[in-house]
Amino acid sequence: MTSEKTTTLSEYLFTRLLQLGADSIFGLPGDFNLKLLDYIAPSGLKWIGNCNELNAGYAADGYARIKGIGALVTTFGVGELSAINAIAGAYAERAPVVHIVGTPPRQLQDSRALVHHTFADGEFGRFDKMQEHITVAQVIIKDYRTAPAEIDYVLQQCLVHSRPVRIAIPHDMVGVRVSAAGLDTKIVIPPPVSQSQVGEGALRLVLDRIYSSKKPMILVDGESRVLDILDEIDQIVKKTEWPTFTSGFGKSLVSEALPNVHGVYTPDHKEFVDSCDLVLCFGPHYSSTNSHQNLTLPRKDVTIDFTGTAIKTNKEAFYDLPSKQFLQQLIAQLDASKFPKHIPEIIPTSTLSPVTRSDPVTQTGGFWQRLSPFLREGDIILAETGTAGYGANEFVLPQHTRLFRPVTWLSIGYMLPAALGASIAQRDLIARSEYHNLPRARTVLLIGDGSFQLTAQELSTIIHHKLDVVVFLINNEGYTIERCIHGRNAEYNDITQWRYLKAPAFFGAPEEGKYAAHTTEIRTWGDLEELLADERMWNAKGIRMVEVFLPRLDAPKLLMGLLHSQEQAEKKQQQKAK
Amino acid sequence: MTSEKTTTLSEYLFTRLLQLGADSIFGLPGDFNLKLLDYIAPSGLKWIGNCNELNAGYAADGYARIKGIGALVTTFGVGELSAINAIAGAYAERAPVVHIVGTPPRQLQDSRALVHHTFADGEFGRFDKMQEHITVAQVIIKDYRTAPAEIDYVLQQCLVHSRPVRIAIPHDMVGVRVSAAGLDTKIVIPPPVSQSQVGEGALRLVLDRIYSSKKPMILVDGESRVLDILDEIDQIVKKTEWPTFTSGFGKSLVSEALPNVHGVYTPDHKEFVDSCDLVLCFGPHYSSTNSHQNLTLPRKDVTIDFTGTAIKTNKEAFYDLPSKQFLQQLIAQLDASKFPKHIPEIIPTSTLSPVTRSDPVTQTGGFWQRLSPFLREGDIILAETGTAGYGANEFVLPQHTRLFRPVTWLSIGYMLPAALGASIAQRDLIARSEYHNLPRARTVLLIGDGSFQLTAQELSTIIHHKLDVVVFLINNEGYTIERCIHGRNAEYNDITQWRYLKAPAFFGAPEEGKYAAHTTEIRTWGDLEELLADERMWNAKGIRMVEVFLPRLDAPKLLMGLLHSQEQAEKKQQQKAK
Repeated sequence: MTSEKTTTLSEYLFTRLLQLGADSIFGLPGDFNLKLLDYIAPSGLKWIGNCNELNAGYAADGYARIKGIGALVTTFGVGELSAINAIAGAYAERAPVVHIVGTPPRQLQDSRALVHHTFADGEFGRFDKMQEHITVAQVIIKDYRTAPAEIDYVLQQCLVHSRPVRIAIPHDMVGVRVSAAGLDTKIVIPPPVSQSQVGEGALRLVLDRIYSSKKPMILVDGESRVLDILDEIDQIVKKTEWPTFTSGFGKSLVSEALPNVHGVYTPDHKEFVDSCDLVLCFGPHYSSTNSHQNLTLPRKDVTIDFTGTAIKTNKEAFYDLPSKQFLQQLIAQLDASKFPKHIPEIIPTSTLSPVTRSDPVTQTGGFWQRLSPFLREGDIILAETGTAGYGANEFVLPQHTRLFRPVTWLSIGYMLPAALGASIAQRDLIARSEYHNLPRARTVLLIGDGSFQLTAQELSTIIHHKLDVVVFLINNEGYTIERCIHGRNAEYNDITQWRYLKAPAFFGAPEEGKYAAHTTEIRTWGDLEELLADERMWNAKGIRMVEVFLPRLDAPKLLMGLLHSQEQAEKKQQQKAK
Repeated sequence: MTSEKTTTLSEYLFTRLLQLGADSIFGLPGDFNLKLLDYIAPSGLKWIGNCNELNAGYAADGYARIKGIGALVTTFGVGELSAINAIAGAYAERAPVVHIVGTPPRQLQDSRALVHHTFADGEFGRFDKMQEHITVAQVIIKDYRTAPAEIDYVLQQCLVHSRPVRIAIPHDMVGVRVSAAGLDTKIVIPPPVSQSQVGEGALRLVLDRIYSSKKPMILVDGESRVLDILDEIDQIVKKTEWPTFTSGFGKSLVSEALPNVHGVYTPDHKEFVDSCDLVLCFGPHYSSTNSHQNLTLPRKDVTIDFTGTAIKTNKEAFYDLPSKQFLQQLIAQLDASKFPKHIPEIIPTSTLSPVTRSDPVTQTGGFWQRLSPFLREGDIILAETGTAGYGANEFVLPQHTRLFRPVTWLSIGYMLPAALGASIAQRDLIARSEYHNLPRARTVLLIGDGSFQLTAQELSTIIHHKLDVVVFLINNEGYTIERCIHGRNAEYNDITQWRYLKAPAFFGAPEEGKYAAHTTEIRTWGDLEELLADERMWNAKGIRMVEVFLPRLDAPKLLMGLLHSQEQAEKKQQQKAK
């Protein structure tokens, strides 16, 4: 028996989370996690109770994308399965989420007892197996001796892959004492080991390609955040002054205030991009929805990809080189006299035609671009899958903003609870003075009526915690994004009509005082103009909600083509029928 | 090439569902199911669009428990995973739900395309594998030649096991032509094949046990519904006149108007039940939550179980005997002169003390029993997991009512969307004049505030379809059921406070006319008395909502003991601390 320091299993886990930057934790109580929850407040974590587990998962994901780690606690079976779609989304888009599940006591499991939250057949392993498909590491804690090492391993995997993990804790283990020795050493991503031969080869290749290029450019994609190379990208963008685009996923990861940063690479820029003879692509996340249905993928023969596991061209792949260290070496060696300036004369930009104050707002008329001045430094902006997500491409973002856009998982309903998570993270960061000293930063949610209905109740948690959240609710009578794809007038793309601006009152917002809810409507360009000048929308505290009325069959330019093709097809069919 | 009749794959499937009794189908549109949805209305099915997929799953489950089949359509990945918890619940509690998933076109899957709703890694099989754990049969349709047979097989498994199945349909297959020959033959549970030797042995044993018993009794459990033996049970209960109880799951499956039917077997009856020397247990579903933590399980040495697969004692098991046919034989042979009457003198019943009109309503004061007269013939009553679920044990139910109570899965939030599903099923049955000719039947939902918050938005679908639903919302400031179990004053058992009675207005209920929402509050016994006499609550159409204010630490009698033990333990600890 050694006289080693000990602690409880739960305290060990929660201390680890706190060390990694999770100041708040999401979830719901359930019979098999109640005693586990007893340890949260004493560990120094803040408990954010959610309305349901899917929302808790989305919130933890939103938190993780801002703070680098997010966590939620659910209960065995019913709770964890409700959260599965959120965990899968975190896997798809690389959010480091720790899913902690309170499970039945070991004795009940071992005796195959017919307890609730099971199929009453004595089988307790099903839900573990289901979630192996959507997590990069899993542990079912059963042995107090190995528990600390198991927790550490799983959390490190979460960091390394920036993807979700699952920790299952039987109800009778939450208070079991374990060695606390590990807590003195923080969990980190293992430091790089120099692979000098590989590194030199890669460096030579990249420098050769740079020095021999005539029309180079930079493409910043969304996994750059995970690779922790945003500073390095910033330096390269500034040093080279090459034309720089982002993918939709990458938008907001490089400053749009720089003259050579031209926003999202859209089909409008394809001719230009395809004319370049070198594309440095940072943190690539190649999916059809992150590349305008593969239309805006860079040419493989001229692209160098900087990924989490390798530096790749269409012919070579150099593994075991962490991008961050490699880029630092590259920056140090990069000789500005040897590479072309390449400042192109024309990069297409969309222009706005003047509008009349009394005319109704439309997306085709430039709603998103005209809303852009509402955004300010420090804001976190979340644009839900749907027309809002496409519209957000058109924003010009101030510095130190962070944009959440639809990427690949595209689970509608995600953005509202993610806004809760991101806003809690923003508050936690400001409390630690780590957030650019921007205490007036807000969270701005742009969401369609269809998406809003999936997870609307989580607005009550936003209200309860007095978060500074502005919601733009797009009322266009249904799933307009689906109308663009198919069934533009189909019944199944309709939704029930809610009285949306009653939401704050229903969900318990104060009717007066500092945190009284403020709601308003936008129907015309004049309304929008007034909103942009409205101090209550800009600087008030708490929840603010704007209902924006837009036509059913109105969408950002890129989608309008789809609606037109459907119309043409319908007309043809009608003519045929005659 | 034969000149056989053909149809489209989608029409084949939807026609099959209609044949089985699914007149309505639930779900949400998504990119990969839009074209599939085009076939719903033309097939004669009604589309019930839900607010989210979990709710759609719950609604399909509620529908299935009334109509014998329920179905929902979701989209690949995001949609189907959101519904998983509902599918698992249908598995646990035997609701025959067909989960139809629209998946990406075959060409995209075969080429491992990096499309949305995947992890952008070319892998399309993950979600299939996850759901094998929670369905009794699955098929991924890929071949038009075998598709009809595959669909038929999967649907038959759904019926036989009364458990969920999954059918995945690639986007490009929905319009593929298939043979329609199968549609002329309905899908049924295969008829029994006489196993005369086994049958005779079983019959002899059961009759022997009956004729030699002195204190026999009957226990009706919830899987009796699935076994389709409710008529046979009714005959046996009437013929024998033996004391009869139900489990919580079995409540409402046998008429409580019969003098020998004594409601739910609770610990109060344990002494009596344990004194019996024969228990005929129909449709047993032995789980801890269906047996007061195993306290009200019948004695194994005196019980004969009639299950879906066998007739069993603690020593013998006779397989391959369908309960329905076996019971019909038993009834035919049962000689009333040979078995004891056994009409016990005393069966404990709970009595009510008088209350004062101005006193606040409480569960300990008999709220549930006193609400009982509100229920009428034909009603479907849903009592959510929590104190409402326990309280519903105390109802005395009129004939032809159907009660949904917490059984084993106990996923809070289930009952509200299940109320939608059940109410749609009720409407479909009344439309076909199959529902006891009780057109004034209502759906009555009893739900706590905590549970309400998980799936509240589905109230908008109830409102949209003008269903006759009465909601009793128990406002007791949080998860009182969890407070009973652990952490009676813990922060994590609190919820955010909503203004619940604003729900109908927020969710779009008409403000005037025939379907105008009616809302009211109950705080005192006088309020309850007025409610019971209020014509608008009884006979109005559309949504009615009652907010019942109950103390935080108030619960049905059975749970109050748990709260008291916690209080005692806290006091002891405080004394220790001194």
